[in-house]
Amino acid sequence: MTQRNPSFTVLSQNYLFPEVAKRKKLFLEQHPGVQLINLSIGDTTEPIPGCIAEELAAAANRLGTATGYSGYGPEQGMESLRTQIANYLYKGIVSADDLFISDGAKCDLGRLQLLFGPEVSIAVPDPAYPVYLDGSLLQGVKKITFMPFTPENNFWPDLAQVKGMDLIYWCSPNNPTGSISSKEQLTLLVAHAKANGSIIIFDAAYAGYIQDPSLPRSIFEIPGAEEVAIEVGSFSKLAGFSGIRLGWTIVPAALKYRDGTSVKADWKRLISTIFNGASNIAQAGGLAVLTDTGMQAVQRTIQFYLENTALLKQALQKLGHNVYGGTHTPYLWVRFPEKESWTAFQEVLEKYHLVTTPGSGFGKAGEGFLRFSAFGHRETILAAISRL
Amino acid sequence: MTQRNPSFTVLSQNYLFPEVAKRKKLFLEQHPGVQLINLSIGDTTEPIPGCIAEELAAAANRLGTATGYSGYGPEQGMESLRTQIANYLYKGIVSADDLFISDGAKCDLGRLQLLFGPEVSIAVPDPAYPVYLDGSLLQGVKKITFMPFTPENNFWPDLAQVKGMDLIYWCSPNNPTGSISSKEQLTLLVAHAKANGSIIIFDAAYAGYIQDPSLPRSIFEIPGAEEVAIEVGSFSKLAGFSGIRLGWTIVPAALKYRDGTSVKADWKRLISTIFNGASNIAQAGGLAVLTDTGMQAVQRTIQFYLENTALLKQALQKLGHNVYGGTHTPYLWVRFPEKESWTAFQEVLEKYHLVTTPGSGFGKAGEGFLRFSAFGHRETILAAISRL
Repeated sequence: MTQRNPSFTVLSQNYLFPEVAKRKKLFLEQHPGVQLINLSIGDTTEPIPGCIAEELAAAANRLGTATGYSGYGPEQGMESLRTQIANYLYKGIVSADDLFISDGAKCDLGRLQLLFGPEVSIAVPDPAYPVYLDGSLLQGVKKITFMPFTPENNFWPDLAQVKGMDLIYWCSPNNPTGSISSKEQLTLLVAHAKANGSIIIFDAAYAGYIQDPSLPRSIFEIPGAEEVAIEVGSFSKLAGFSGIRLGWTIVPAALKYRDGTSVKADWKRLISTIFNGASNIAQAGGLAVLTDTGMQAVQRTIQFYLENTALLKQALQKLGHNVYGGTHTPYLWVRFPEKESWTAFQEVLEKYHLVTTPGSGFGKAGEGFLRFSAFGHRETILAAISRL
Repeated sequence: MTQRNPSFTVLSQNYLFPEVAKRKKLFLEQHPGVQLINLSIGDTTEPIPGCIAEELAAAANRLGTATGYSGYGPEQGMESLRTQIANYLYKGIVSADDLFISDGAKCDLGRLQLLFGPEVSIAVPDPAYPVYLDGSLLQGVKKITFMPFTPENNFWPDLAQVKGMDLIYWCSPNNPTGSISSKEQLTLLVAHAKANGSIIIFDAAYAGYIQDPSLPRSIFEIPGAEEVAIEVGSFSKLAGFSGIRLGWTIVPAALKYRDGTSVKADWKRLISTIFNGASNIAQAGGLAVLTDTGMQAVQRTIQFYLENTALLKQALQKLGHNVYGGTHTPYLWVRFPEKESWTAFQEVLEKYHLVTTPGSGFGKAGEGFLRFSAFGHRETILAAISRL
C-alpha cells in the first residue's frame, strides 16, 4: 500500500480546537443540563451589517441572471476588490498589483510555505496560531526556532536568537497573547530581516482592531518592508466573514529569492495551479465592506467586541489574575501561575462552566496561560463575568 | 536572502490557460476590432437556476440577522450538505462521514498530494488536467509515469506500465479527451490498484454530464473501491458553481496507508490545519442544488451544454476532423494531424477567430490535438459553427 507522508508523524496528534471540543463534549456528557459559555475559539458572533448582507445577496441573485452570471474569476481576484483593499484599506501604501485575493488567511498561510520548500529554516512565535508551525511541518520543514513571546520579555523576543533564519513568522495584533508590535519594534524587525536575508511572513488578520493610529496596522508601514515581507490579511475578524471566507495576501514585486528571482511570480504560479479563487459572492461582499458606510458599520461591531474585552479583562483582574492583551485585540492572555494550561482549562470549565483555550495549545511558552476570547454576545460575556 | 523552493524550477514556465490568454490578447492587439469566440477555458456560461440563486441570497441575508448569523462552520462541512451528497447524489454508496466539503476540486487535488509526501511514485494520465502533475511537482514528487490516453489505445492505457505506482490519478468523464471509463474498465482499475497496493485519486468533476445510467459516475460504484480510492467531486460543472466555489472529497474510512494507519484521519487533520471550509453561502446553495427541483434545473442546463457539444461535434466532423469525446462531456478532442497543437491553435485563431485549448498543454500525448469546449451561450456556439 502507498506510504504515509512522514511529515504527519511529527504533527501533534490532535489539533488544538478539536481537542477543546472533545473535552467540552465529555464534560457535557458527564454533566447534562449544564450551560457552558464558550470563550474558546476565536470566532465572530455578531451579524454582519445589513448593508453588507444586502450586497452579498445581490451578488447571489445576479448569478441567476443571464447578464449577471460569472464563472471563474480572475486568478488574482476581482480587480475592483484588489484596488479597493490597496487604496482604501491600505491608503495606497501597497500596490493592487501585488495583492492576491484568497479564501482566508489560514488557507494562504498553509500555501505560503510551499514557496520556500522543506529546506528553509523558520522562526515561529511561541505561543502562536498553530498553522505557522503545523503548516510548515506538513511541508517537511525541519529547521525550526521558537521565539518566546512572554510577559518576561514584554512580548518582544530577542531577535539575536533568530539570526539567519530564512523565514520569520510574525503576528500583530497577536493571537493568542493580544500583544501589539509598535512601529519602532517592526522597524527593528524589518532591519533584522534585511541584515539577515530573512523573509517576514506577517499575519495582520486582527489589524482592524487597532484603534490607535500611531500603532502599525501593516508591516508595509515600515519603509523597506516591501523587500523583506509578505503580509496576510483577512475579512474574517474585520467584518465577521469567518464563515464567508475572504482574505488576501500581499507579495510585493520587490521581494526576491536568494537567486534574484521574483517571489511574487512564483506565488502567482502557485495560486493559479492549486487554488481557484475566493467565492465571487464573498468578493462582492468584501467590496461592500470597503466603503465609508461599510467600514463604519464593521467598526461599530469591532468597538462592541473591544468593549467585551475590556469588561472581561476587568473581571479577571478583580480575581487577581495577571491579564495581558485586551486593547486593540479581542483576546486576553491570562496567567494561571504554577498550573499547567490544561489543568487550568479543566478548573475553569468545572468551576465557572467557561470554555477557554489552553495556552499550551499555542506552544510551550503558552504553558500556564489561558486565552479568553471576547467574541460573544454582550449577554454571554456578562453571564461569563457574573460566573467569575 | 531566502531560497526558492527547488520544486518551482521543474514546473513549466507558464500555466496553460494564462498562456492561451496571452496569445489571445496579443492577437487582439494586432487585429483590433476582431470578435474572438472563446471555446478554450472550461467554464460554465449559463445563469444558475433561480431556485438556487434564491437560496444563496437567502443564506447571505441570514448572515445579517442575529439568529441567522454563523461564523466558522464544522471542519468537514455542513452535516446536512454532506448527508445530502451521500444519500441523494451518491444514493447511499458512500458515507456522509467519509465526505469532506471543500472550495472546489482543484483546491482539494492540490492538497491531496500532501497526504503522501514527495517520495511516492505517481501515474498521471497524458493528456490531463494540469493540477495532477503540477500539484505533485510542487510537493517535490519525482517518480512520475505518464499513462497515454489516445485514440490508438481507445483512451485506455496499459495498466501493466503503471505496476507498483503508489498513486494513480484518473479522470472520467475525462478532461480534456472527453472519454468515459466504463464500469468494466473501472473494475479492472480497482483490481489493478488492489493487486499493486496503489491508491486511485479519482476526479469525478464531470460526473453530472453522464446521461447513461449504465456508465459509472463514481469510482465507488465498483465494489471494493473504498479500500483503494479517493474521489473528488465538484458543484462547478454540475451546477454552474465555478465562481461560487464548492466541491467535496471522499476519503473512505477503509482506506489505509502501508503502515495500516487511516488516510481519512490524516485528511481530517490536514484540512483542519491548512483549510477553513467552503463559504457557508456556497454550502447553502449546494443544498438547494440537491433537491428534486434543483437537480431538474441543473440537469436542464447540462442538457443544454450537451446539445452544444453535439452541434459543435457535427460541424467539426463535417470539416473532416477526427473528433473524440462529445457524449456525456462538454469537451471535444479534435485531431489536427501532423500539426503541433500550438500551430493548430494559432491557425484556428487566425482563420476562424476561435480560441481553443492546445492539446499539448495537457501533456505530450495531447500534441496534435485541440480541445474545444462546448460551454457557451447557444448563439456563441452557433456563431462558432458558422465560422467553421
